[in-house]
Amino acid sequence: MVQNPARRTALADAAIEVLARDGARGLTFRAVDVQAGVPNGTASNYFANRDHLLHQTARHIHHRLTPDPAVIADLLRAPRDRALVTALMHDLIRRISADRAGYLAMLELRLEATRRPGLRAQLTGTIREQLEANVAYHLDGGLPGDRETVLVLYLAMTGLIVEHLTLPEVLGTDTLPALIDTIVERIVPAT
Amino acid sequence: MVQNPARRTALADAAIEVLARDGARGLTFRAVDVQAGVPNGTASNYFANRDHLLHQTARHIHHRLTPDPAVIADLLRAPRDRALVTALMHDLIRRISADRAGYLAMLELRLEATRRPGLRAQLTGTIREQLEANVAYHLDGGLPGDRETVLVLYLAMTGLIVEHLTLPEVLGTDTLPALIDTIVERIVPAT
Repeated sequence: MVQNPARRTALADAAIEVLARDGARGLTFRAVDVQAGVPNGTASNYFANRDHLLHQTARHIHHRLTPDPAVIADLLRAPRDRALVTALMHDLIRRISADRAGYLAMLELRLEATRRPGLRAQLTGTIREQLEANVAYHLDGGLPGDRETVLVLYLAMTGLIVEHLTLPEVLGTDTLPALIDTIVERIVPAT
Repeated sequence: MVQNPARRTALADAAIEVLARDGARGLTFRAVDVQAGVPNGTASNYFANRDHLLHQTARHIHHRLTPDPAVIADLLRAPRDRALVTALMHDLIRRISADRAGYLAMLELRLEATRRPGLRAQLTGTIREQLEANVAYHLDGGLPGDRETVLVLYLAMTGLIVEHLTLPEVLGTDTLPALIDTIVERIVPAT
């Protein structure tokens, strides 16, 4: 197999679009080729089988949703208080709103994971690692609260993201920034 | 069309199983007939088209996930304090764990709603109504906290349910009851 890294990324980006638009059942090699605008048969040269395609797509979504280190470094110049946690949560929602397809594709993969033990093991490892990194980052960085603070905040933000991406009018897009402030205020201690 | 209410319910139950197992793209009249064990062509006598089938299935999930009034009335004999909120949240998770397919099917419908404006409008109306009913129930019943308490609690529980149903090992099933206690403790004021 001759493989080109830029093409591999283009195929993974195309897989995310297909997942978000057509769901996990719509994710075929053919659909990825069409979405990427490459000759029929290309995706099957890059991914051994459908499981491999799903795993690589999950990895690529994780990569796409990773924050820009420069933005985070800039935010971290501020004092380590509740206001900083609020700013970090606003940045999270900004990133997710800017990559709606990436997060919807991740929800599709979560549902597909209920049917595929291999995918479930992979996603469990990734998400658990990410969550533990968030806990360590929060506690080591001297942000207010304890391990449970981070867990409850993570769950409330997950709920907010699912609601906002699938049925945005339930919470209303106008009130979203105020709701993020409220979530942090109610969960993270002031000092 | 000759319609039989028991058969209509059986078809809606079958549609939920198909959605949870195969996703929204797998939900066809034929798949519902096979799942319900009825002659091919039956579902198409009960639902005018695929949109109608999706809407009726959403309505039926809502019905299946509604708490048993006797259980709730029994819980409500207790004092209106934080411990009662905790008991209500444990009951919610019990119901959802007992009807895993119902909740997974609702997640599939949420994703399908991003592609179908009619379904999105219907689900938005249902979920918003349910959320406002929760707020009214909490405040009118004298449970501790305000409107924002109920909103933040709803979001954290939504995050918990999505995590627990799709990737249960991330949070661990053993620690789930303790995590529910923590969520309520951190979000709902003591008095």
